[in-house]
Amino acid sequence: MTAVRVAGVGLTHFGTHPDRTGRDLFAEASQRALADAGVERRAIEGLNYGNFMGELAEHQGHQGPLMAEAAGIDAPATRYESACASSGVALREAVKDVRNGESDVLLVGGAERMNNLGTAGTTEALAIAADDLYEVRAGMTFPAAYALMARSYFEQYGGSREDLAEIAVKNHANALDNEHAQFQREISVEEALDSPMVAEPLGLFDACPITDGASAVVLVSDEYAEKNDLDAPVAITGTGQGGDKMALQDREFLARTPAAERAAEEAYADAGIEATDVAAAEVHDCFTIAEVLALEALGFYAPGEGIGAAARGETTRDGDLPINLSGGLKAKGHPVGATGTSQVAEMTRLLRGDHPNSDAVDGDVGVAHNAGGTVASATVHVLEVVS
Amino acid sequence: MTAVRVAGVGLTHFGTHPDRTGRDLFAEASQRALADAGVERRAIEGLNYGNFMGELAEHQGHQGPLMAEAAGIDAPATRYESACASSGVALREAVKDVRNGESDVLLVGGAERMNNLGTAGTTEALAIAADDLYEVRAGMTFPAAYALMARSYFEQYGGSREDLAEIAVKNHANALDNEHAQFQREISVEEALDSPMVAEPLGLFDACPITDGASAVVLVSDEYAEKNDLDAPVAITGTGQGGDKMALQDREFLARTPAAERAAEEAYADAGIEATDVAAAEVHDCFTIAEVLALEALGFYAPGEGIGAAARGETTRDGDLPINLSGGLKAKGHPVGATGTSQVAEMTRLLRGDHPNSDAVDGDVGVAHNAGGTVASATVHVLEVVS
Repeated sequence: MTAVRVAGVGLTHFGTHPDRTGRDLFAEASQRALADAGVERRAIEGLNYGNFMGELAEHQGHQGPLMAEAAGIDAPATRYESACASSGVALREAVKDVRNGESDVLLVGGAERMNNLGTAGTTEALAIAADDLYEVRAGMTFPAAYALMARSYFEQYGGSREDLAEIAVKNHANALDNEHAQFQREISVEEALDSPMVAEPLGLFDACPITDGASAVVLVSDEYAEKNDLDAPVAITGTGQGGDKMALQDREFLARTPAAERAAEEAYADAGIEATDVAAAEVHDCFTIAEVLALEALGFYAPGEGIGAAARGETTRDGDLPINLSGGLKAKGHPVGATGTSQVAEMTRLLRGDHPNSDAVDGDVGVAHNAGGTVASATVHVLEVVS
Repeated sequence: MTAVRVAGVGLTHFGTHPDRTGRDLFAEASQRALADAGVERRAIEGLNYGNFMGELAEHQGHQGPLMAEAAGIDAPATRYESACASSGVALREAVKDVRNGESDVLLVGGAERMNNLGTAGTTEALAIAADDLYEVRAGMTFPAAYALMARSYFEQYGGSREDLAEIAVKNHANALDNEHAQFQREISVEEALDSPMVAEPLGLFDACPITDGASAVVLVSDEYAEKNDLDAPVAITGTGQGGDKMALQDREFLARTPAAERAAEEAYADAGIEATDVAAAEVHDCFTIAEVLALEALGFYAPGEGIGAAARGETTRDGDLPINLSGGLKAKGHPVGATGTSQVAEMTRLLRGDHPNSDAVDGDVGVAHNAGGTVASATVHVLEVVS
């Protein structure tokens, strides 16, 4: 079995792009990834593409072939959709295809336009990631769903709005030097606590923003990298996926995310690592509480211990296990379908040393954790410096 | 590399189901497939699921985990979307995963609700499979797109509305004994020609209907089939996928479908067969002209020769190469996301001998051809009786 190298990564700026289409955004991200990889378009054997709400935001399905065209490649293309984990699942299948010898060079990425729907329209569109019959029609929005998860966590393990605010503050601080980030500005705990309440206990600064953007990575086999003398020191050595009941009310716990636990277990076993080997992680902090749940699902903290990690300084830039050095979904932004591959793009740069925050990473092993809906689906990938 | 067996298949009735949800339909199809396979739910390691317009028809994205739950399985699930080839691409990834040893038992399927949108709503929803900026906004609907392809074919190679009518008549005749089919009634060439014009030269009887339905298949490795003493004589021995420019105006030809040509070439090479080895095929006849284009892309006929095949009796039930013995999309129905796996389900039964039309198949090799949009994406799978 070959190792799967990340040969190149590319991102657009994450933010508000009222004058740009999804295909325009993906063209930019893919062009950057190909240039970063030093791989020519004609070498690409396929595109695995993640998108979540294109049907609603751009009246556009069937985005696989459309985005292959936007990327300038002449190869089969498939769109994957697993809500906010759309490009995570797209990536997973590409990793398997390269390591099994099905392909030597694949483009993986995602894009999302959201701002053109407005805040109410986006909230409604995001709701299709939850159970329409048994959650959405009862009035549940995503902030409400994560608020239920936060309340459940607080009741079971303790924790406070201050603990959550520390996570937002940390992630904003991490984004300061990230040119791709939607928010390159510091916030304070007081600002976070004073922000408008969205769904008790979550305020505006507990939530990630609404974002337009695209991301792409080029995956190649060991053999291809060697033969073409590519500079690709980072490999994806583990992949895992988990699923859970769609509706919160059908789950045993609201304060744990077994889909991500299973994905992590599988990915770690696949890579032959333990949670303690991980030097840094990009996790799916669509809300501050989601970062806490991720830390525990990934085995970095026991249940109930993750909530204070940022406040204790353990997951900050200078901590032992820096989390979301990119700024995370919270500050970097969350163009839904692009997030999974953007996490891998950021982690690749963090590990290979050309990210503004690379100096905060003390080790060779990173993890990317991507979640769909209220973590009814999740993927985890392990990245390692292998040369 | 293991062979990939089709251990079981299941379909709902294809038709109008105003009182049933997508999850309800998929629960039925998957239950039938599991029962047919003799495989227990807990053995399923993953679900690859195809759906096209769930965001619009049911306000429901993220259908992977939802449908896993509907099927009663506790395993990771991913939704694939490639317009009308959605479950074709879902199947392809599952085939690769089983033969590469990533999984031993996978559930693959698809579902679509369409009738609840009404005719105008469905036409609008189907349009998201075309290029929204450069086709849909110019007023193009899918009947119009295929009418352009038919006109181009007629101009280049000849052919008539009568030739197309013969295809509709053939496929209706094939569906007579298919209990899953939306239309179990014969039509005549005169009826087809007298049907209302939709988009010149295509009349109502050149088009497939609007259909609600679901399909599922259970794939297992050789080893699993043997160990568990499963009766699974049919294997998927070849898989191929192709892509093309999204918009018709960007293509070199309108009367050929290179995405399907590439998919066929890859699938045949994968299986080690030639077009001449094929005994029967299920092809994507969303419009009668699409069957002609498929016959030529699959290498059964040279360009320009496929148009008269039904009229000459070569592709009828008693012909040398029976096409769409299930009734095809035309008479069996076309619940978009379910079509790819339904073709494989029908072909499996045709080859293993328990389909009402099995006696028309003279040979051990069948092909399933699934196309997305105006064949901007396509998959081809080769099925063979291997024991």
